[in-house]
Amino acid sequence: MTAAKRDTYTPETLLSVAVEVFIQRGYDGTSMEHLSKAAGISKSSIYHHVAGKEELLRRAVSRALDGLFGILDEEHARVGRAVERLEYVTRRMVEVLIAELPYVTLLLRVRGNTGTERWALERRREFDHRVADLLKAAAADGDVRGDIEVRLATRLVFGMINSIVEWYRPDVRGAGVQEIADAVVQLVFSGLRKEG
Amino acid sequence: MTAAKRDTYTPETLLSVAVEVFIQRGYDGTSMEHLSKAAGISKSSIYHHVAGKEELLRRAVSRALDGLFGILDEEHARVGRAVERLEYVTRRMVEVLIAELPYVTLLLRVRGNTGTERWALERRREFDHRVADLLKAAAADGDVRGDIEVRLATRLVFGMINSIVEWYRPDVRGAGVQEIADAVVQLVFSGLRKEG
Repeated sequence: MTAAKRDTYTPETLLSVAVEVFIQRGYDGTSMEHLSKAAGISKSSIYHHVAGKEELLRRAVSRALDGLFGILDEEHARVGRAVERLEYVTRRMVEVLIAELPYVTLLLRVRGNTGTERWALERRREFDHRVADLLKAAAADGDVRGDIEVRLATRLVFGMINSIVEWYRPDVRGAGVQEIADAVVQLVFSGLRKEG
Repeated sequence: MTAAKRDTYTPETLLSVAVEVFIQRGYDGTSMEHLSKAAGISKSSIYHHVAGKEELLRRAVSRALDGLFGILDEEHARVGRAVERLEYVTRRMVEVLIAELPYVTLLLRVRGNTGTERWALERRREFDHRVADLLKAAAADGDVRGDIEVRLATRLVFGMINSIVEWYRPDVRGAGVQEIADAVVQLVFSGLRKEG
C-alpha cells in the first residue's frame, strides 16, 4: 500500500503536498523533515525531484502567478474598451483564484524573507500595476468614476477578491465559482444600491 | 532611563506591546518570556497586571469587538431606512478598523485554539450576522439589489474592509481615514462604473 503510494509520486503531487504544508506551518516554519513526513517519502527522494524547499516555493507561486498573468494575455483582456477589459479581468481573477486556490493562498501569504519570496512580491506588484493601468484607462475613457484614487480603488478591489481564499472551500455546500464571480463583478462595477 | 520607562507601565501600555508581539509572532508562538522582553519588564511585573497571556488576548480582542459592536448602538445605525443604516455602519467599520488598527488586525488573525479565541470568533460571527441582517432588511425595502445572496455579499464587503489592515499604515503618506471610508462606501454602494 505504502509502496504503491510512493510509486505514484511525481513532481506535481510533491508540489501539491508542499503547498499544503507551507500554508499550514508557514514557509519559514517548514523544514525538509516536515515535507518528507507529509509526503510520506524520504528526504533523498524529495531531493531527487527538487533542489530544496525554496524551489518548491518558487514552483508553487509561479503556478499562481502564471495563472494570473495568463489572464492579461487572453483576448478579452487585450481587445475592447478598457472598462470591459477590466470587468473581464476581475471575473477571471476570481476564477483563477478558485481554480488555483492553494497556490494563490500561498502567494498571498508570502512575506519576503528569501529571494524567491521577494521575487514573488515583485511579480504580485507588477500584476497589481497592470490592473491599475486598466482602471486608469477606463477612468480616462470616462467609463468609471474618477473620484476614487486609482491605487486605493485597486487595493480595495484586490482586497475583496483576495479575501475569498479565507472562506472558499471546494466541495462544500455554498456559492459556486460562477455565483461568486458574478457577485464580485456586480459589486465592484455596479455596487449594492438599486438605482431609482 | 530604563527605570523611568518602567515606571510609566500601565495595563494599557502593556496591552499595546502585547498586541504587537501577538501580531508579529502569532498568539500561539508568543511566550510570557517574549512579552517580558518586548515590554522591558519582568514576568512577575506582567503577572502583577494580568493572569497570563490569554487575559491579554481577551482584553485586546475585546477592545476591537467593543469598537465594532459600539457602532451598532450609534443613533444612525439604529434609526432610519435600512440602506442608510447599512451605509453608516460600513463607513464606521472602516473608521473603527483604522482607529483600532492593531486590535482589529489581531482579531482578524484569531484562529480558535483556545477558549478566548473561540469566543472571539463567535463574537465576530455575531457581528457579521448583525450586518447581514441590515443588508437583508435593505433588500426587503427594495433599496439594494436582490440578486446577490446576502451571506456572499456580506463576506465580500467584509473582505474589502478587512483587507485594509494589510496595507494601511498610520503617519505614512497615503490615503487618510476619510478618503478610504468614502472610497469603500462609494465602491460598495455605487460601484466603479459610471452610469451611461
